[in-house]
Amino acid sequence: MSPAAPARGPVLPGRVTLVEVGPRDGLQNEARRLATDDKLALIRRLAAAGITRIEATSFVHPGRVPQMADAEAVMAGVPRDRGVAYAGLVLNPRGAERAVAAGCDEIGSVVVATESFSLRNQGRSVADTLADWARIAAIARGAGRRLTVTIAAAFGCPFEGLVDPARVVALAEAALAAGPDEIALADTIGVAVPTQVVDLFHRLRAVAGAVPLRAHFHNTRNTGYANAYAALTAGVSALDASAGGIGGCPFAPAATGNVATEDLIYLLDGLGVRTGVDGPAVAALAPWLEDALGHPVPGQLGRAGFSTVVPRADPRPPDGLEPGPS
Amino acid sequence: MSPAAPARGPVLPGRVTLVEVGPRDGLQNEARRLATDDKLALIRRLAAAGITRIEATSFVHPGRVPQMADAEAVMAGVPRDRGVAYAGLVLNPRGAERAVAAGCDEIGSVVVATESFSLRNQGRSVADTLADWARIAAIARGAGRRLTVTIAAAFGCPFEGLVDPARVVALAEAALAAGPDEIALADTIGVAVPTQVVDLFHRLRAVAGAVPLRAHFHNTRNTGYANAYAALTAGVSALDASAGGIGGCPFAPAATGNVATEDLIYLLDGLGVRTGVDGPAVAALAPWLEDALGHPVPGQLGRAGFSTVVPRADPRPPDGLEPGPS
Repeated sequence: MSPAAPARGPVLPGRVTLVEVGPRDGLQNEARRLATDDKLALIRRLAAAGITRIEATSFVHPGRVPQMADAEAVMAGVPRDRGVAYAGLVLNPRGAERAVAAGCDEIGSVVVATESFSLRNQGRSVADTLADWARIAAIARGAGRRLTVTIAAAFGCPFEGLVDPARVVALAEAALAAGPDEIALADTIGVAVPTQVVDLFHRLRAVAGAVPLRAHFHNTRNTGYANAYAALTAGVSALDASAGGIGGCPFAPAATGNVATEDLIYLLDGLGVRTGVDGPAVAALAPWLEDALGHPVPGQLGRAGFSTVVPRADPRPPDGLEPGPS
Repeated sequence: MSPAAPARGPVLPGRVTLVEVGPRDGLQNEARRLATDDKLALIRRLAAAGITRIEATSFVHPGRVPQMADAEAVMAGVPRDRGVAYAGLVLNPRGAERAVAAGCDEIGSVVVATESFSLRNQGRSVADTLADWARIAAIARGAGRRLTVTIAAAFGCPFEGLVDPARVVALAEAALAAGPDEIALADTIGVAVPTQVVDLFHRLRAVAGAVPLRAHFHNTRNTGYANAYAALTAGVSALDASAGGIGGCPFAPAATGNVATEDLIYLLDGLGVRTGVDGPAVAALAPWLEDALGHPVPGQLGRAGFSTVVPRADPRPPDGLEPGPS
């Protein structure tokens, strides 16, 4: 028998809040446009599973993001009897006004860490985006809504490669001046590794004071879950995820998108970090999502299952293990 | 600008050895049988990429594992000019004799952590397997070959669920009595989480003395890479992986198998942990594997790429990010 006491691992929080971004980040690039009722069915099932924060939609130009053209209709239909806070993504003051009018509990905006990606993705310079952000913040605060900001491409940029942490921190400081209720770092293109995550969130904490930190990871290079684990050790209190891990690139169907909510819950449950969300209930959404979207989703718990126990009477080898161990 | 110095993360080793298990664990359950020449082509390309340890085949009954029926032919054809150590998996003394005769540099065997899984997978009790292991060890040592043992299902069993760490440690102590050159813990069914990995490897270290530790992870529930990261902080000097992440269950084609060598290299490169292996060269094998096996492989670097830089002239949105950030 082992004489050793269990070794101390890193210090993990007792609880983390999951922010479900499937209805927005997950769906925005999907080729097949979901009906508003389908989006609402998804949101209702997520709420029923115990999700308490949902990024429900974005208030951007419908010509640019057709999938989000029904933003007002979605917000008009979300269930209000479960205590869920609904966020709307906005990129300019007009979007913020729409989100407020539509009843979003939370207004989330984005500043991109690099000039190239900001110009390409938002069509505006970083300085212009920061100016917009201040106006967005004023609108949200004026309406008494919760306000969050995300630094996108914080770990790497598709045009500029690795991003200087000092640049991200400087941008975060500028964004924090508008007084958000939370600030997030996003690995928008899925290139980060855990040491980078720990380093950057510690740097962010040094300038964010008591403002809560959130992390947003994509699993494009299979580092998303390791990064989420690392972020837990670096002071984040919320993690973004999408049911099924949807949010992949429409031009590369096999590439994965956001970390999958159900897979993240499997990890967090195992780590003893409470979420209050029913993982199997979220995993059960995967077949529905695959049917609605017309392609497989990258989340694995919908296939592998939360239980580690295969009935002994099952005539099939468990999990492909036979006929050879390990 | 950030006033903060980079935060200290966990202590990571400067270097780790990758053990490529694709030719054995990766292929053994594949429905399509690869020609010996195709296996040798794979092994040559892995060696050319810088892999220095390859589990080339297993010496088990060809009726039970048809894919490994050419074990002797594979070993007769492996390249011997690159300093690669070739391992053969054996489950009984007869297999060990075959592996020695075939020229394996390393003899690897397996003891399963639970009685149910041992009976189901090996067809023998744990006690019988341990007795075999002692005989295997004597054969390998007598022939001057390197000797390794893996505790399979060390973190979870498909029949018994979570495995008591004390049981794994007791089994490891019994296996260590035969004097292996390395001992490994395998998450055979892909259920482990990082805290469990850190705990169990620390417990193992307490009984293994100076014997090097290796870890074997499957990514069945998307925890494989987080577990590999955690294992690095807990004293392992070698990690198993398979090119393309092959090794999935033939009954569940979408389920992933071993952690993918190329994806693990992406993570390790980013963490600053040297492997000596050319990640892009391994990632370049993915299309070949997909063609040879007739299905997509779960490794993501073959699709996503090691570079974070997309040419500015590329008319397509980078990585599916448009038209909405994060």
